[in-house]
Amino acid sequence: MKSSIGKMFHMTIFGESHGEMIGVSIDGLPAGIKLDLAYMNAQLDLRKPKGKISTSRKESDAPHIISGYFNEHTTGTPLTILFENNNTKSKDYSETKNVMRPSHADYTANEKYMGYQDYRGGGHFSGRLTTPIVAAGAIAKQILASKGIQIGSHIRNIASIYDEAFDDETLLQQIDLLNNKYFPVLSEKTEAEMMTYMEQVASEGDSCGGVIETLVAGMPVGIGEPMFHSIESTLSQLLFSVPAIKGVEFGLGFEFMNHKGSELNDSFYYEGTSVKTKTNHNGGINGGISNGMPIRIKSVVKPTPSIFKHQDSINIETKENVNFQINGRHDPAIIHRARVVIDSVVAIGLLDLCAMRYGYLWMKEDK
Amino acid sequence: MKSSIGKMFHMTIFGESHGEMIGVSIDGLPAGIKLDLAYMNAQLDLRKPKGKISTSRKESDAPHIISGYFNEHTTGTPLTILFENNNTKSKDYSETKNVMRPSHADYTANEKYMGYQDYRGGGHFSGRLTTPIVAAGAIAKQILASKGIQIGSHIRNIASIYDEAFDDETLLQQIDLLNNKYFPVLSEKTEAEMMTYMEQVASEGDSCGGVIETLVAGMPVGIGEPMFHSIESTLSQLLFSVPAIKGVEFGLGFEFMNHKGSELNDSFYYEGTSVKTKTNHNGGINGGISNGMPIRIKSVVKPTPSIFKHQDSINIETKENVNFQINGRHDPAIIHRARVVIDSVVAIGLLDLCAMRYGYLWMKEDK
Amino acid sequence: MKSSIGKMFHMTIFGESHGEMIGVSIDGLPAGIKLDLAYMNAQLDLRKPKGKISTSRKESDAPHIISGYFNEHTTGTPLTILFENNNTKSKDYSETKNVMRPSHADYTANEKYMGYQDYRGGGHFSGRLTTPIVAAGAIAKQILASKGIQIGSHIRNIASIYDEAFDDETLLQQIDLLNNKYFPVLSEKTEAEMMTYMEQVASEGDSCGGVIETLVAGMPVGIGEPMFHSIESTLSQLLFSVPAIKGVEFGLGFEFMNHKGSELNDSFYYEGTSVKTKTNHNGGINGGISNGMPIRIKSVVKPTPSIFKHQDSINIETKENVNFQINGRHDPAIIHRARVVIDSVVAIGLLDLCAMRYGYLWMKEDK
Amino acid sequence: MKSSIGKMFHMTIFGESHGEMIGVSIDGLPAGIKLDLAYMNAQLDLRKPKGKISTSRKESDAPHIISGYFNEHTTGTPLTILFENNNTKSKDYSETKNVMRPSHADYTANEKYMGYQDYRGGGHFSGRLTTPIVAAGAIAKQILASKGIQIGSHIRNIASIYDEAFDDETLLQQIDLLNNKYFPVLSEKTEAEMMTYMEQVASEGDSCGGVIETLVAGMPVGIGEPMFHSIESTLSQLLFSVPAIKGVEFGLGFEFMNHKGSELNDSFYYEGTSVKTKTNHNGGINGGISNGMPIRIKSVVKPTPSIFKHQDSINIETKENVNFQINGRHDPAIIHRARVVIDSVVAIGLLDLCAMRYGYLWMKEDK
Repeated sequence: MKSSIGKMFHMTIFGESHGEMIGVSIDGLPAGIKLDLAYMNAQLDLRKPKGKISTSRKESDAPHIISGYFNEHTTGTPLTILFENNNTKSKDYSETKNVMRPSHADYTANEKYMGYQDYRGGGHFSGRLTTPIVAAGAIAKQILASKGIQIGSHIRNIASIYDEAFDDETLLQQIDLLNNKYFPVLSEKTEAEMMTYMEQVASEGDSCGGVIETLVAGMPVGIGEPMFHSIESTLSQLLFSVPAIKGVEFGLGFEFMNHKGSELNDSFYYEGTSVKTKTNHNGGINGGISNGMPIRIKSVVKPTPSIFKHQDSINIETKENVNFQINGRHDPAIIHRARVVIDSVVAIGLLDLCAMRYGYLWMKEDK
Repeated sequence: MKSSIGKMFHMTIFGESHGEMIGVSIDGLPAGIKLDLAYMNAQLDLRKPKGKISTSRKESDAPHIISGYFNEHTTGTPLTILFENNNTKSKDYSETKNVMRPSHADYTANEKYMGYQDYRGGGHFSGRLTTPIVAAGAIAKQILASKGIQIGSHIRNIASIYDEAFDDETLLQQIDLLNNKYFPVLSEKTEAEMMTYMEQVASEGDSCGGVIETLVAGMPVGIGEPMFHSIESTLSQLLFSVPAIKGVEFGLGFEFMNHKGSELNDSFYYEGTSVKTKTNHNGGINGGISNGMPIRIKSVVKPTPSIFKHQDSINIETKENVNFQINGRHDPAIIHRARVVIDSVVAIGLLDLCAMRYGYLWMKEDK
Repeated sequence: MKSSIGKMFHMTIFGESHGEMIGVSIDGLPAGIKLDLAYMNAQLDLRKPKGKISTSRKESDAPHIISGYFNEHTTGTPLTILFENNNTKSKDYSETKNVMRPSHADYTANEKYMGYQDYRGGGHFSGRLTTPIVAAGAIAKQILASKGIQIGSHIRNIASIYDEAFDDETLLQQIDLLNNKYFPVLSEKTEAEMMTYMEQVASEGDSCGGVIETLVAGMPVGIGEPMFHSIESTLSQLLFSVPAIKGVEFGLGFEFMNHKGSELNDSFYYEGTSVKTKTNHNGGINGGISNGMPIRIKSVVKPTPSIFKHQDSINIETKENVNFQINGRHDPAIIHRARVVIDSVVAIGLLDLCAMRYGYLWMKEDK
Repeated sequence: MKSSIGKMFHMTIFGESHGEMIGVSIDGLPAGIKLDLAYMNAQLDLRKPKGKISTSRKESDAPHIISGYFNEHTTGTPLTILFENNNTKSKDYSETKNVMRPSHADYTANEKYMGYQDYRGGGHFSGRLTTPIVAAGAIAKQILASKGIQIGSHIRNIASIYDEAFDDETLLQQIDLLNNKYFPVLSEKTEAEMMTYMEQVASEGDSCGGVIETLVAGMPVGIGEPMFHSIESTLSQLLFSVPAIKGVEFGLGFEFMNHKGSELNDSFYYEGTSVKTKTNHNGGINGGISNGMPIRIKSVVKPTPSIFKHQDSINIETKENVNFQINGRHDPAIIHRARVVIDSVVAIGLLDLCAMRYGYLWMKEDK
């Protein structure tokens, strides 16, 4: 109930960073969907740390399906995917467990769970738990793609380095390009600048964040429920469950504050028999429901709180203020890896809303 | 299920703008809470249109409790509050029902409900439906206040006119001040400037938006659930259900993109035996769970889409592009009225999370 | 959440026997269903006390739809139906509120709600609360009937007086007959005997119960979910929410204990291209899922606990044992009135399962 | 959502009989409960086939906890328990998969899942799936026992062989006796007779069922929610999810039909300051809520449909009627093994209701 979400595509995430296994159980898939496991693995690969700017934790991200799957198709009963945690015994946490890392969940989890939480590596609050979310998201993306609904995200900016903007004319090609890149930017020049910046930040033992911009093309009209299950409500609930996300906006978002209504209303018009809007300031959503234009979302990813500098904090055992430094290897940025997690939760949310609108059997129907 | 929310404080909102009644049924209140109906009425009063910048729709906002309430206390069974819609027969909609107002839910609702929706005045998507939310929120705010948890919001800015900032030293007084003002700003000078600006916008037949900033003082540590039921996930789901909200951020929000981790980590320290953070960039939330510092939220309210200018749109009966103007009286801004709705959903979300943490009987226990 | 049920056809029941109004809000109906209000009234009429064996509480059972309904069709948003309680001020409860009526919910509700419950007339636990259930059930029955699914119940027996059995050959006619009778028995002779018996019981100031047998004809194959949402699980949860029901069985039920497997297995065979079973000991359900044969349910209705004899009990104010007699008029049996409530919850449960299997839009599709 | 249940103690069951693993994920346990794994293993042992009357499928029933558990205590995050299926590749199902075993879920599952279900050994509908239920039930029973709530069941009868009745005077000893016996009857003489009968039935290649009677001692007053979450509704939903159960009754159950109200009302009286009832015909439940007397439940277990006799059925591939015999080894009765599954679901349901009444933290509080 607490680590679960979804009305039709219902999933429960379980596990801890240094437990034996983590996983997800999905209840709500119809029988008869042929899963594209190569695609699932490719999506999981986008979440893995790689290259100069990432740590080298050797984790097995091989999905292991143990239920709800038979003869390469879903059976209609709960589909459970497990992931082993390989290096769970590699470290001694006795020294560090009482020092609360600033801006991590160490202190709040300790208070919430009264000291019984698995504190190793962030436990249930670790970014490791996004692995099963990506596996579930791969299934959701596969189903949506079979209906012509495409999701793509780029790093809009890291600090003051901005990528090229999405372009309505070439949107599907841009989405396709991004979905095949590990570092999701549209401009190669931007990529080089961002990499240089991140290496600089890494060399300082520091970290940085940025903004992920997500577009959804091919949305049918009329998806989203009133009130608490609008597209915005549904997606924001999922997006804020991704560690490090601290702000979410749709369409112009906070920029709406700087304009008058007459400048921003998206006028409808008929193009042949299909309805479009001349502008798309509302990000494809009116009254919480899709209007058929691309959905536009921006999510801010804060700098990772793990840095290689001395920080002040507290030791909850000795009840003393301390100054300490986090050991181990850490990433100066996780925004590029957060991309596929964001794509995944957007897919999961939209699939759930589509199934609420069309019925869950729609998931397996031919387009 | 669709117009419902909450795990412990569960509520269903029902009704349409021009139906006979609207209301809310709350399931999850323990028996024995003495409701402060005067406070509920005062909260509802903050939502009403008033003064020069608002329309004069004469609506009865008198809450009518028909169940779950006996001898001035909750009974523990579903509490249902009704509101009559007074002027439901005052207008002929036959001319306007086929013209889709830009940036309203007219078109999307028509597609979703296949023409069967109650199109009069926005139906279930009308701002009128925030009335029962405020009534439910008044109960949530009353309960939270009895525990020392205070919620207050101001209009941070309308266009480029900014109010004074919240001040940690005088936060409780500021919250108290705001909760007693119809137009929620800290500075009287700002209020005058905003009013002048809004009257100017109104005279142009236009509309404007802005940003509401909300602070929650007195939060206990350890509230919020992992993953999809974090404070951010829970509150954003509720906040995006408020019409016109298009962006939500916690703590620094999108400003996180412009800084490095070392600049923003909130260091813990002991002040006596209590734990605090030196800064509060994360808005009182670590890993989705409260850390005891004030919760900080910003929500952008877009300009109301109803304006008094000619607009392009479509007529879904004739299937033609049209140019038209919305009749009747409308507000140039609803941001000041949105304030109490935002306070209400924040209270509802936090009360739900508190009850998940402490049990629902906590709601009626003495502080 | 507590007084709510249903995954697709989700309903919340609210109100108390002597509160101002009671009602139901249904969330999950698709837009565009034309409701048959005459049928709803006819169903409500079957629940009313009538004739020599019933009390004459003059209650308005007129359903008052206040939301989710427009131009004689459902709108797709929550449908709320209210019923006024007419004679809520007719009685002084100060004398009786502290004497706990045996086998009623007086004592348990008082303990649960710590004295804050509305104790007048049973409050939220009153049989009066079955009124909105019947209204919701009328909608469910209407929808199921449009798909060829027919539900009918008779009083199988009162004490040792047994009605004729259902007959597979004439099942649809029998169901039709029962649905048009206030006193639901197949045999006129049985009806006379039961009436005589009940009048005799009434003259003794006593009460009696019996067994309602329900058949569902026209069930499609494959309805029901595994585990906790099987047909049996779903219907029994609903049936046991009907006051006075203390036992539920499917197919042979408890009679299964007296036979061997070889005597009871229901063999499949092809009749043309359709699959049938030679016998139907399992009541149309295998593994919790419908097999296409008629569903068979038996529910025992206990004698109403309100009797006109002196009884021992306790006074919770004086903390003394007392001997007392219940005043007012009461029914010697409610089994004939319970029939339509049973039909209603069976319809609600089966409709919910059908919508889980086929999608909620199926509810409004043509057969 | 479909294979899930519980509002506070929420569990999802996943897996298939011949898949790689089955399991349960429990969301809702508070942090800090020390699990008694030896007790869990002992409970699982009661479910295993043993002795002359059972098959010898060698299954590993060793529970493998992979999440939510740290330093021998619950962490407060989802607790997941896995079980391996050892002999999943031992058989060729190609011959039998198209012949629908009478009174099994073969045909209904095939229709529901359109042929995509894992048909081997009953798949998700197999009795194997009761293993994780027993593991979850062991946790629930442990918690309830720490509060003084004891659950015990005996085989009341198999065919016409009846065990001794429960006795109010020695109820706790009887419960204790039963919980330590593999074959749960109170009388040794009955046990011998039942064993002889079952061996006789086995020698005929046939099967038999019977009735399990369950008593719950030590229930606090005031547990259970109104309407659809009464004790009867909650427990019956769970009980009917146990394969082979076709009837459930509380207190006198169907016997209520043979008596008048005056004979059956349970009179309250004060014994010192505590409230009791002179009789307990209602099985400790009034209005769906516990009254403090022992809860009494009877569940009928039908004969296992797998028998060693030729049966008529259909082949869904050839579309022909067939006569066939089930191969392999099977049990003539599973009623003795069903006992611990029944105890488990009763414990799970009551724990959920207790947590709804007292809050989930109650689970870990000292008695």
